[in-house]
Amino acid sequence: MSLDKPKKALTLTRRQALKVLGVGTGVALTPRIVASRLATSEEDKRADVIVVGAGFAGLTAARNLMREGRRVVVLEARDRVGGRVKAGKLAGHSVDVGGMWVGPTQTRLLEMIKEYGLHTTPQFEAGKAISEINGKRASADGEGTGMNPEDERAYNRIVKELDHLSGLLPLDAPWNMVDAEALDDITVQDWLSSATTNKAVRSFLEASIRLNFAADPFQMSFLYFLFYLRSGDNFDTLNGYKNAAQAFLVKETVHEVAARIAIELKHTIILESPVRTISQNASGVTVNSDKGNWRADYAIVAVPLPLSVRIAYDPPLSPERDILAQHMPMGSVIKYWVAYEKPFWREHGLNGMLWSDLPPSSAICDASPSGGGPGFLVGFFEAHNALQWTGRPMEERKKVVIERIVEFLGPEGAHPIDYEDQDWPAEVCSRGCYGASMGPGIMTTVGKVIRQPHGRIHWAGTETATRWMGYIDGAIRSGDRAAAEVQSRAKESKASA
Amino acid sequence: MSLDKPKKALTLTRRQALKVLGVGTGVALTPRIVASRLATSEEDKRADVIVVGAGFAGLTAARNLMREGRRVVVLEARDRVGGRVKAGKLAGHSVDVGGMWVGPTQTRLLEMIKEYGLHTTPQFEAGKAISEINGKRASADGEGTGMNPEDERAYNRIVKELDHLSGLLPLDAPWNMVDAEALDDITVQDWLSSATTNKAVRSFLEASIRLNFAADPFQMSFLYFLFYLRSGDNFDTLNGYKNAAQAFLVKETVHEVAARIAIELKHTIILESPVRTISQNASGVTVNSDKGNWRADYAIVAVPLPLSVRIAYDPPLSPERDILAQHMPMGSVIKYWVAYEKPFWREHGLNGMLWSDLPPSSAICDASPSGGGPGFLVGFFEAHNALQWTGRPMEERKKVVIERIVEFLGPEGAHPIDYEDQDWPAEVCSRGCYGASMGPGIMTTVGKVIRQPHGRIHWAGTETATRWMGYIDGAIRSGDRAAAEVQSRAKESKASA
Repeated sequence: MSLDKPKKALTLTRRQALKVLGVGTGVALTPRIVASRLATSEEDKRADVIVVGAGFAGLTAARNLMREGRRVVVLEARDRVGGRVKAGKLAGHSVDVGGMWVGPTQTRLLEMIKEYGLHTTPQFEAGKAISEINGKRASADGEGTGMNPEDERAYNRIVKELDHLSGLLPLDAPWNMVDAEALDDITVQDWLSSATTNKAVRSFLEASIRLNFAADPFQMSFLYFLFYLRSGDNFDTLNGYKNAAQAFLVKETVHEVAARIAIELKHTIILESPVRTISQNASGVTVNSDKGNWRADYAIVAVPLPLSVRIAYDPPLSPERDILAQHMPMGSVIKYWVAYEKPFWREHGLNGMLWSDLPPSSAICDASPSGGGPGFLVGFFEAHNALQWTGRPMEERKKVVIERIVEFLGPEGAHPIDYEDQDWPAEVCSRGCYGASMGPGIMTTVGKVIRQPHGRIHWAGTETATRWMGYIDGAIRSGDRAAAEVQSRAKESKASA
Repeated sequence: MSLDKPKKALTLTRRQALKVLGVGTGVALTPRIVASRLATSEEDKRADVIVVGAGFAGLTAARNLMREGRRVVVLEARDRVGGRVKAGKLAGHSVDVGGMWVGPTQTRLLEMIKEYGLHTTPQFEAGKAISEINGKRASADGEGTGMNPEDERAYNRIVKELDHLSGLLPLDAPWNMVDAEALDDITVQDWLSSATTNKAVRSFLEASIRLNFAADPFQMSFLYFLFYLRSGDNFDTLNGYKNAAQAFLVKETVHEVAARIAIELKHTIILESPVRTISQNASGVTVNSDKGNWRADYAIVAVPLPLSVRIAYDPPLSPERDILAQHMPMGSVIKYWVAYEKPFWREHGLNGMLWSDLPPSSAICDASPSGGGPGFLVGFFEAHNALQWTGRPMEERKKVVIERIVEFLGPEGAHPIDYEDQDWPAEVCSRGCYGASMGPGIMTTVGKVIRQPHGRIHWAGTETATRWMGYIDGAIRSGDRAAAEVQSRAKESKASA
């Protein structure tokens, strides 16, 4: 490493930084101050490593590298950090309008929560859930669906088969699984249709899959689906609350983790600096953003994979990588929050959990602030439901959500004190949520390039993770990996110099 | 319309223009002269309409508008015109390494060929074709497959059913077809699998579909597929040579049509000017390219739909349009040409047409220059075959192609005098060919925005056509439509001013 000393950048007080990064406010402010100082220099600015994107993947990569003494700059297109994790306000409380839950085997995220002094709180599920599947309404304790025993046996058999198949798959190279091609060339829907003729079970599974992927089962490769299950332990872990992927919330919002990493990274983060082009040669990379040009030894691109090809690369990306991105659309989801004076459903013995296979929304649950106060419900317009409701006025969505709540939880549902939603496909720097899913025939053809560096450019982002792919935990792990890759190359390069 | 008079731009002699635009050379030259003169002005340059992309859609739109007195500028990222239509050299002859054939109902392309004084020549098919389907080799006259009568009946029944279904579909609004959703939520493969258990027929149909779409049948929506069939008349028209979509070649190359439109457009085309951002407000659009900024009343974006979202828009595109682009990947195809001293296969009573359902290539045919001389074969690595061979050295592809030719046409195939191929997924401004196909569940959800203007931005490109979508003829028609849309708005705006 033989770069110039970086220009002294603006150092904020902790209080200023908190404000700039939206910490504690729940809503991010536009930190033009941070950005303008660094961006006014006429010449190209220098760093050791440029990280593109300040979601969990980029923040983690940057933090790791900074801790190892590398000079890092993080270029973020938005006016906030966190990426697909975002804080919002509901009835005066900070809530997560993006990624939110954390589960017991999401150990990297749990470590971060602990390290930054934040607190988890268990997902509420005391009382009865209501489900409406294939036209039948049922109720059951906790997160139960109230399926009849016959359906339950059929359901369990399918889940067992899915877990068996996904257990055969090598996480770091799913394309090497036995019969990988045959499994990759069918959709999840194809497999489901051949696995059971039980309509109720199939309908429930389809709704669960829509909810988990924000994509319809007829849009995804079955091999990719098995990989995803394995990556997140197994089917029930992905779907469940208790002891599963939706076990805990973060009291202060999980976005607060991102905000605190950002404080550690301080002036290295340049907000509102969308990157347009990345060029490289034998001596380094040059990244051109709306806030100027940066030069460095390496770059880590940590934006959602389908959006990463909207940057122009010189030399260009391999065709395999571009094809991969083209066949890996973002999921479509709109997350909504509804606030009531109190969690009235609890008084009726209900826990606020709803399942349904009918539009506009597969699931709702209780995410009220712990320790009393208002009652909060959170739910999703997912997959084709989201495609129907994206881009429309929030009031229209609010109307159908309230109707659904009244239908399931009674007339008190008609009087919310607040409503908020996040239309992720409309968010220009995400263009969808939660993650990107592979279509059929992609994983076994071009899938193996997913983590392959493009010269001096390395890739992060939850889509590149092998463990908890599509989740915040996976994003962190991808940041760990990308930072380690760059560190290892930098050391090799130094040793051979 | 109340814009300043444009700066006087460099006017080339016809001879200079021919050279700059690669006309008559078969290969495009880099016309820095044309570009630099226009790009050196410090201030934003002005036009009435900015067209992004100089493929057939953009060229047609620009030409139509210019003929109606509009001041047009065409910004083209490449160093040549023609887009997915491109000229190459094989054994000293100009050949089309991109779009090539023209059929009798592709009337807009036929008109253009005539208008610019070019000539069609029929696809050669005198002699026997060889097919190898489901492990059985057969031979038949013309473009016949030599199927046995039972298979042929099964095949005809399926084609009839496909034509019946596609005939029910309204071309301008396929999402309104009866049962549209059910047809959209399955893949073409799903339909085929349910339509026949005849392996040979299914395998032949799958190969035909791969060849026609450069995509695998398990990747496409069945509704989209029906739309495409209807758009190109019917299944047999899309697949066939004689009286069908592959009826004629253009003697001078079909790329020559693009080159001649470009001559008519002269200095309005700015090559090597990739567009990065398009912003607009009540008074007009500003287009930022690597060759400077242009302002105009309207823009027509005529690049492949999935690539159109790699431009940054301010205000941003609707989520529906972005989702559409994400779920509409480009087809993957590598087109190859092999030259021999003479068309030796003809001496053996063969017409050079080969069909196969095995890798690496579904079809080959004879495209020798008319009037004697060398023998040319042209073929395709398509869909998953292309995914396997893209990005690799041409010599590796040449080897497997020659092996295939020797296997089918005999040992004389081992001695080509020239080989050329075009790896379309590797071409940065196309990232695939022929066109983009919709995945399941897209046409009936967000598909209807495909031609919806984004403020002052109108859309062209073959993907937006209703007639001959995916073909050169569709590209021309889309250019006609976009130009008419802009003209109509401009007139309205003048009338109300």
